[in-house]
Amino acid sequence: MPDTASAMNFCTNCGAPVALSVPQGDHLPRHVCTACHAIHYSNPKVVVGCVPEWEGRILLCRRAIEPRRGFWTMPAGFMENGESTRAGAARETFEESQARVQVEELVTLISIPDINQVHLLFRARMETAHHGPTPESSEVQLFHEADIPWEALAFRTVQHTLRHYVEDRRLGRRDPHLIDLGPRMV
Amino acid sequence: MPDTASAMNFCTNCGAPVALSVPQGDHLPRHVCTACHAIHYSNPKVVVGCVPEWEGRILLCRRAIEPRRGFWTMPAGFMENGESTRAGAARETFEESQARVQVEELVTLISIPDINQVHLLFRARMETAHHGPTPESSEVQLFHEADIPWEALAFRTVQHTLRHYVEDRRLGRRDPHLIDLGPRMV
Repeated sequence: MPDTASAMNFCTNCGAPVALSVPQGDHLPRHVCTACHAIHYSNPKVVVGCVPEWEGRILLCRRAIEPRRGFWTMPAGFMENGESTRAGAARETFEESQARVQVEELVTLISIPDINQVHLLFRARMETAHHGPTPESSEVQLFHEADIPWEALAFRTVQHTLRHYVEDRRLGRRDPHLIDLGPRMV
Repeated sequence: MPDTASAMNFCTNCGAPVALSVPQGDHLPRHVCTACHAIHYSNPKVVVGCVPEWEGRILLCRRAIEPRRGFWTMPAGFMENGESTRAGAARETFEESQARVQVEELVTLISIPDINQVHLLFRARMETAHHGPTPESSEVQLFHEADIPWEALAFRTVQHTLRHYVEDRRLGRRDPHLIDLGPRMV
Protein backbone atom coordinates (compact mmCIF):
# COMPACT_ATOMS: atom_id res chain seq x y z
CA MET A 1 0.00 0.00 0.00
CA PRO A 2 1.75 3.24 -1.02
CA ASP A 3 1.46 6.17 1.36
CA THR A 4 -0.88 8.51 -0.48
CA ALA A 5 -0.27 11.31 2.01
CA SER A 6 3.37 12.19 1.56
CA ALA A 7 2.70 15.96 1.61
CA MET A 8 3.33 17.46 5.05
CA ASN A 9 1.40 20.73 4.96
CA PHE A 10 -0.76 20.67 8.09
CA CYS A 11 -0.37 19.64 11.75
CA THR A 12 -1.90 16.24 12.59
CA ASN A 13 -2.57 17.47 16.11
CA CYS A 14 -4.44 20.77 15.54
CA GLY A 15 -4.80 21.17 11.75
CA ALA A 16 -2.84 24.45 11.50
CA PRO A 17 -0.12 24.90 8.83
CA VAL A 18 3.38 23.54 9.54
CA ALA A 19 6.71 25.14 8.64
CA LEU A 20 10.23 23.68 8.43
CA SER A 21 12.54 24.70 11.28
CA VAL A 22 15.28 23.16 13.43
CA PRO A 23 13.88 22.47 16.92
CA GLN A 24 16.05 23.43 19.93
CA GLY A 25 18.58 20.68 20.66
CA ASP A 26 18.03 19.12 17.24
CA HIS A 27 20.29 19.32 14.17
CA LEU A 28 17.87 18.84 11.25
CA PRO A 29 14.88 20.81 9.99
CA ARG A 30 11.55 19.27 11.00
CA HIS A 31 7.94 20.10 10.22
CA VAL A 32 6.86 22.19 13.23
CA CYS A 33 3.30 23.42 13.78
CA THR A 34 2.94 27.20 13.56
CA ALA A 35 0.09 27.10 16.11
CA CYS A 36 0.60 24.31 18.70
CA HIS A 37 4.36 23.87 18.03
CA ALA A 38 4.10 20.07 17.76
CA ILE A 39 7.17 18.60 16.04
CA HIS A 40 6.46 16.10 13.25
CA TYR A 41 9.28 13.66 12.57
CA SER A 42 9.57 11.55 9.44
CA ASN A 43 11.66 8.37 9.68
CA PRO A 44 12.55 5.38 7.51
CA LYS A 45 10.05 2.55 7.20
CA VAL A 46 10.84 -1.12 7.80
CA VAL A 47 10.02 -3.80 5.23
CA VAL A 48 9.99 -7.36 6.60
CA GLY A 49 9.90 -10.55 4.60
CA CYS A 50 11.41 -13.98 4.18
CA VAL A 51 12.69 -16.72 1.90
CA PRO A 52 10.32 -19.61 2.67
CA GLU A 53 11.82 -23.05 2.05
CA TRP A 54 10.06 -26.41 1.67
CA GLU A 55 12.12 -29.56 1.02
CA GLY A 56 14.93 -27.55 -0.52
CA ARG A 57 12.68 -25.48 -2.78
CA ILE A 58 12.11 -21.75 -2.41
CA LEU A 59 8.67 -20.10 -2.43
CA LEU A 60 8.28 -17.07 -4.70
CA CYS A 61 5.27 -14.91 -5.52
CA ARG A 62 4.40 -13.36 -8.86
CA ARG A 63 3.20 -9.83 -8.20
CA ALA A 64 -0.47 -9.21 -9.07
CA ILE A 65 -0.14 -5.50 -8.30
CA GLU A 66 2.09 -2.55 -9.14
CA PRO A 67 4.92 -1.78 -8.76
CA ARG A 68 6.54 -4.51 -10.88
CA ARG A 69 3.36 -6.45 -11.64
CA GLY A 70 4.16 -9.81 -13.26
CA PHE A 71 7.64 -10.03 -11.71
CA TRP A 72 8.68 -12.45 -8.97
CA THR A 73 9.42 -11.59 -5.37
CA MET A 74 9.77 -13.17 -1.99
CA PRO A 75 6.88 -12.34 0.36
CA ALA A 76 7.62 -9.01 2.10
CA GLY A 77 5.88 -5.81 3.10
CA PHE A 78 5.72 -2.92 5.53
CA MET A 79 6.10 -3.84 9.19
CA GLU A 80 3.05 -2.80 11.25
CA ASN A 81 2.90 -1.19 14.66
CA GLY A 82 2.52 -3.72 17.49
CA GLU A 83 4.39 -6.62 15.89
CA SER A 84 7.95 -7.96 15.98
CA THR A 85 10.07 -8.14 12.83
CA ARG A 86 9.68 -11.93 12.61
CA ALA A 87 5.92 -11.80 13.29
CA GLY A 88 5.64 -9.20 10.53
CA ALA A 89 7.58 -11.39 8.10
CA ALA A 90 5.31 -14.36 8.88
CA ARG A 91 2.17 -12.22 8.50
CA GLU A 92 3.28 -10.84 5.12
CA THR A 93 4.13 -14.36 3.97
CA PHE A 94 0.68 -15.65 4.81
CA GLU A 95 -1.03 -12.63 3.23
CA GLU A 96 0.92 -12.90 -0.01
CA SER A 97 1.34 -16.67 -0.42
CA GLN A 98 -1.06 -18.51 1.95
CA ALA A 99 2.02 -20.22 3.43
CA ARG A 100 2.55 -20.57 7.18
CA VAL A 101 6.22 -20.23 8.13
CA GLN A 102 8.62 -20.40 11.06
CA VAL A 103 10.89 -17.39 10.64
CA GLU A 104 14.57 -18.04 11.39
CA GLU A 105 17.78 -15.98 10.96
CA LEU A 106 18.31 -12.81 8.99
CA VAL A 107 19.64 -13.31 5.45
CA THR A 108 20.02 -9.64 4.52
CA LEU A 109 19.71 -6.26 6.21
CA ILE A 110 19.36 -3.80 3.34
CA SER A 111 19.30 -0.01 3.64
CA ILE A 112 17.85 2.04 0.78
CA PRO A 113 18.50 5.63 1.92
CA ASP A 114 17.12 7.05 -1.30
CA ILE A 115 13.59 5.88 -0.49
CA ASN A 116 13.91 5.83 3.32
CA GLN A 117 13.52 2.08 3.73
CA VAL A 118 15.22 -0.67 5.73
CA HIS A 119 14.55 -4.24 4.58
CA LEU A 120 14.91 -7.15 7.00
CA LEU A 121 14.74 -10.42 5.04
CA PHE A 122 14.85 -13.70 6.94
CA ARG A 123 15.23 -17.41 6.28
CA ALA A 124 12.01 -19.35 6.94
CA ARG A 125 10.75 -22.94 7.08
CA MET A 126 7.30 -23.62 5.69
CA GLU A 127 5.20 -25.52 8.23
CA THR A 128 3.39 -27.43 5.47
CA ALA A 129 3.65 -27.46 1.67
CA HIS A 130 0.46 -25.39 1.39
CA HIS A 131 0.65 -22.20 -0.67
CA GLY A 132 -1.44 -20.46 -3.30
CA PRO A 133 -2.46 -17.24 -5.03
CA THR A 134 -3.71 -14.20 -3.08
CA PRO A 135 -4.95 -10.71 -3.97
CA GLU A 136 -1.30 -9.59 -4.12
CA SER A 137 0.15 -12.63 -5.93
CA SER A 138 -1.20 -14.01 -9.22
CA GLU A 139 0.96 -17.15 -8.84
CA VAL A 140 2.81 -18.63 -5.90
CA GLN A 141 5.31 -21.36 -6.70
CA LEU A 142 8.08 -23.48 -5.14
CA PHE A 143 11.31 -23.26 -7.16
CA HIS A 144 14.33 -25.53 -7.28
CA GLU A 145 17.48 -23.40 -7.24
CA ALA A 146 18.14 -24.09 -10.93
CA ASP A 147 14.68 -22.79 -11.86
CA ILE A 148 14.73 -19.46 -9.99
CA PRO A 149 13.58 -16.79 -12.50
CA TRP A 150 16.65 -14.56 -12.06
CA GLU A 151 15.74 -12.45 -15.09
CA ALA A 152 12.20 -11.77 -13.88
CA LEU A 153 12.76 -10.75 -10.26
CA ALA A 154 10.85 -7.68 -9.08
CA PHE A 155 13.42 -5.76 -6.99
CA ARG A 156 17.15 -5.46 -6.29
CA THR A 157 16.43 -6.50 -2.69
CA VAL A 158 15.04 -9.81 -3.99
CA GLN A 159 18.06 -10.42 -6.25
CA HIS A 160 20.59 -9.75 -3.47
CA THR A 161 18.72 -11.81 -0.92
CA LEU A 162 18.13 -14.85 -3.14
CA ARG A 163 21.70 -14.80 -4.39
CA HIS A 164 23.09 -14.75 -0.86
CA TYR A 165 20.53 -17.33 0.27
CA VAL A 166 21.52 -19.93 -2.30
CA GLU A 167 25.28 -19.23 -1.93
CA ASP A 168 25.10 -19.40 1.86
CA ARG A 169 23.08 -22.61 1.77
CA ARG A 170 25.80 -24.20 -0.37
CA LEU A 171 28.55 -22.92 1.98
CA GLY A 172 26.69 -23.69 5.22
CA ARG A 173 26.80 -20.01 6.24
CA ARG A 174 23.97 -18.46 8.23
CA ASP A 175 25.23 -14.98 9.16
CA PRO A 176 23.48 -11.99 7.63
CA HIS A 177 24.67 -9.72 4.83
CA LEU A 178 24.59 -5.96 5.41
CA ILE A 179 23.91 -4.13 2.18
CA ASP A 180 23.47 -0.43 1.40
CA LEU A 181 21.80 0.26 -1.93
CA GLY A 182 22.37 3.49 -3.83
CA PRO A 183 19.67 5.42 -5.67
CA ARG A 184 18.13 3.35 -8.48
CA MET A 185 15.09 1.25 -9.17
CA VAL A 186 14.40 -0.89 -6.09
CA MET B 1 13.75 13.74 20.65
CA PRO B 2 10.26 12.42 21.53
CA ASP B 3 7.54 12.87 18.92
CA THR B 4 5.35 15.56 20.44
CA ALA B 5 2.71 15.10 17.76
CA SER B 6 1.39 11.61 18.37
CA ALA B 7 -2.27 12.70 18.00
CA MET B 8 -3.58 11.98 14.51
CA ASN B 9 -6.60 14.27 14.21
CA PHE B 10 -6.05 16.13 10.93
CA CYS B 11 -4.84 15.35 7.42
CA THR B 12 -1.23 16.43 6.76
CA ASN B 13 -2.11 16.95 3.11
CA CYS B 14 -5.21 19.21 3.27
CA GLY B 15 -5.83 19.91 6.98
CA ALA B 16 -9.32 18.34 7.11
CA PRO B 17 -10.27 15.92 9.93
CA VAL B 18 -9.28 12.26 9.57
CA ALA B 19 -11.32 9.19 10.58
CA LEU B 20 -10.31 5.58 11.16
CA SER B 21 -11.39 3.17 8.44
CA VAL B 22 -10.04 0.10 6.61
CA PRO B 23 -8.94 1.13 3.09
CA GLN B 24 -9.93 -1.16 0.20
CA GLY B 25 -7.46 -4.03 -0.13
CA ASP B 26 -6.09 -3.37 3.36
CA HIS B 27 -6.76 -5.33 6.54
CA LEU B 28 -6.21 -2.77 9.32
CA PRO B 29 -7.90 0.52 10.20
CA ARG B 30 -5.90 3.57 9.08
CA HIS B 31 -6.36 7.29 9.51
CA VAL B 32 -8.09 8.36 6.28
CA CYS B 33 -8.85 11.97 5.37
CA THR B 34 -12.57 12.77 5.27
CA ALA B 35 -11.95 15.38 2.53
CA CYS B 36 -9.07 14.35 0.20
CA HIS B 37 -9.14 10.62 1.21
CA ALA B 38 -5.35 10.48 1.73
CA ILE B 39 -4.38 7.41 3.80
CA HIS B 40 -2.02 8.08 6.72
CA TYR B 41 0.02 5.07 7.80
CA SER B 42 1.84 4.78 11.11
CA ASN B 43 4.76 2.34 11.26
CA PRO B 44 7.49 1.28 13.70
CA LYS B 45 10.57 3.47 14.08
CA VAL B 46 14.14 2.22 13.79
CA VAL B 47 16.72 2.91 16.50
CA VAL B 48 20.35 2.45 15.40
CA GLY B 49 23.40 2.34 17.63
CA CYS B 50 26.58 0.47 18.40
CA VAL B 51 29.01 -0.93 20.95
CA PRO B 52 32.19 1.05 20.23
CA GLU B 53 35.39 -0.78 21.21
CA TRP B 54 38.90 0.60 21.74
CA GLU B 55 41.75 -1.73 22.73
CA GLY B 56 39.32 -4.19 24.32
CA ARG B 57 37.40 -1.55 26.26
CA ILE B 58 33.76 -0.60 25.57
CA LEU B 59 32.54 2.98 25.26
CA LEU B 60 29.43 3.88 27.24
CA CYS B 61 27.59 7.17 27.71
CA ARG B 62 25.94 8.45 30.88
CA ARG B 63 22.62 9.99 29.87
CA ALA B 64 22.38 13.76 30.44
CA ILE B 65 18.71 13.79 29.42
CA GLU B 66 15.49 11.97 30.19
CA PRO B 67 14.41 9.24 29.93
CA ARG B 68 16.80 7.46 32.34
CA ARG B 69 19.03 10.45 33.05
CA GLY B 70 22.16 9.41 34.96
CA PHE B 71 22.06 5.82 33.65
CA TRP B 72 24.52 4.32 31.18
CA THR B 73 23.83 3.41 27.59
CA MET B 74 25.55 2.65 24.35
CA PRO B 75 25.25 5.43 21.76
CA ALA B 76 21.97 4.96 19.84
CA GLY B 77 19.06 6.96 18.51
CA PHE B 78 16.38 7.26 15.85
CA MET B 79 17.48 6.53 12.31
CA GLU B 80 16.96 9.51 9.98
CA ASN B 81 15.61 9.58 6.45
CA GLY B 82 18.34 9.47 3.81
CA GLU B 83 20.90 7.42 5.73
CA SER B 84 21.80 3.72 5.97
CA THR B 85 21.52 1.84 9.26
CA ARG B 86 25.31 1.82 9.73
CA ALA B 87 25.67 5.51 8.80
CA GLY B 88 22.96 6.29 11.33
CA ALA B 89 24.72 4.29 14.04
CA ALA B 90 27.99 6.15 13.34
CA ARG B 91 26.22 9.53 13.36
CA GLU B 92 24.50 8.84 16.68
CA THR B 93 27.81 7.67 18.16
CA PHE B 94 29.55 10.89 17.19
CA GLU B 95 26.66 13.05 18.41
CA GLU B 96 26.47 11.32 21.80
CA SER B 97 30.12 10.50 22.51
CA GLN B 98 32.39 12.50 20.14
CA ALA B 99 33.82 9.16 18.99
CA ARG B 100 34.36 8.30 15.31
CA VAL B 101 33.65 4.65 14.58
CA GLN B 102 33.72 2.04 11.84
CA VAL B 103 30.46 0.15 12.17
CA GLU B 104 30.72 -3.63 11.72
CA GLU B 105 28.28 -6.55 12.22
CA LEU B 106 24.95 -6.58 13.95
CA VAL B 107 25.05 -7.69 17.61
CA THR B 108 21.31 -7.60 18.30
CA LEU B 109 18.10 -7.03 16.36
CA ILE B 110 15.51 -6.21 19.00
CA SER B 111 11.79 -5.73 18.41
CA ILE B 112 9.74 -3.86 21.02
CA PRO B 113 6.18 -4.16 19.66
CA ASP B 114 4.73 -2.40 22.68
CA ILE B 115 6.35 0.90 21.70
CA ASN B 116 6.61 0.27 17.93
CA GLN B 117 10.39 0.23 17.79
CA VAL B 118 13.06 -1.92 16.11
CA HIS B 119 16.60 -1.58 17.48
CA LEU B 120 19.60 -2.44 15.30
CA LEU B 121 22.73 -2.48 17.48
CA PHE B 122 26.08 -3.11 15.86
CA ARG B 123 29.68 -3.85 16.80
CA ALA B 124 32.03 -0.91 16.08
CA ARG B 125 35.75 -0.09 16.12
CA MET B 126 36.73 3.37 17.35
CA GLU B 127 39.02 5.05 14.81
CA THR B 128 40.94 6.83 17.59
CA ALA B 129 40.68 6.84 21.39
CA HIS B 130 39.00 10.24 21.31
CA HIS B 131 35.66 10.56 23.12
CA GLY B 132 34.03 13.05 25.47
CA PRO B 133 30.83 14.54 26.89
CA THR B 134 28.10 15.98 24.67
CA PRO B 135 24.73 17.66 25.20
CA GLU B 136 23.17 14.19 25.51
CA SER B 137 25.90 12.53 27.63
CA SER B 138 27.21 13.95 30.92
CA GLU B 139 30.10 11.43 30.92
CA VAL B 140 31.55 9.21 28.20
CA GLN B 141 33.91 6.47 29.36
CA LEU B 142 35.78 3.39 28.16
CA PHE B 143 35.06 0.36 30.37
CA HIS B 144 36.94 -2.87 30.85
CA GLU B 145 34.46 -5.76 30.85
CA ALA B 146 34.84 -6.22 34.62
CA ASP B 147 33.88 -2.59 35.22
CA ILE B 148 30.69 -2.40 33.13
CA PRO B 149 28.03 -0.76 35.34
CA TRP B 150 25.49 -3.60 34.95
CA GLU B 151 23.30 -2.22 37.76
CA ALA B 152 23.12 1.25 36.25
CA LEU B 153 22.27 0.56 32.62
CA ALA B 154 19.55 2.69 31.09
CA PHE B 155 17.49 0.24 29.03
CA ARG B 156 16.79 -3.48 28.55
CA THR B 157 18.13 -3.15 25.01
CA VAL B 158 21.50 -2.06 26.46
CA GLN B 159 21.60 -4.96 28.94
CA HIS B 160 20.81 -7.58 26.29
CA THR B 161 23.25 -6.15 23.78
CA LEU B 162 26.19 -5.74 26.18
CA ARG B 163 25.64 -9.19 27.67
CA HIS B 164 25.65 -10.81 24.23
CA TYR B 165 28.58 -8.65 23.12
CA VAL B 166 30.89 -9.74 25.94
CA GLU B 167 29.77 -13.40 25.77
CA ASP B 168 30.21 -13.53 22.00
CA ARG B 169 33.63 -11.88 22.20
CA ARG B 170 34.71 -14.60 24.62
CA LEU B 171 33.31 -17.34 22.37
CA GLY B 172 34.50 -15.82 19.09
CA ARG B 173 30.90 -15.60 17.81
CA ARG B 174 29.83 -12.76 15.52
CA ASP B 175 26.31 -13.70 14.42
CA PRO B 176 23.44 -11.51 15.62
CA HIS B 177 20.86 -12.24 18.30
CA LEU B 178 17.18 -11.77 17.43
CA ILE B 179 15.24 -10.66 20.48
CA ASP B 180 11.58 -9.76 20.95
CA LEU B 181 10.88 -7.76 24.12
CA GLY B 182 7.48 -7.85 25.80
CA PRO B 183 5.75 -4.83 27.31
CA ARG B 184 7.77 -3.32 30.16
CA MET B 185 10.16 -0.49 30.83
CA VAL B 186 12.56 -0.26 27.88
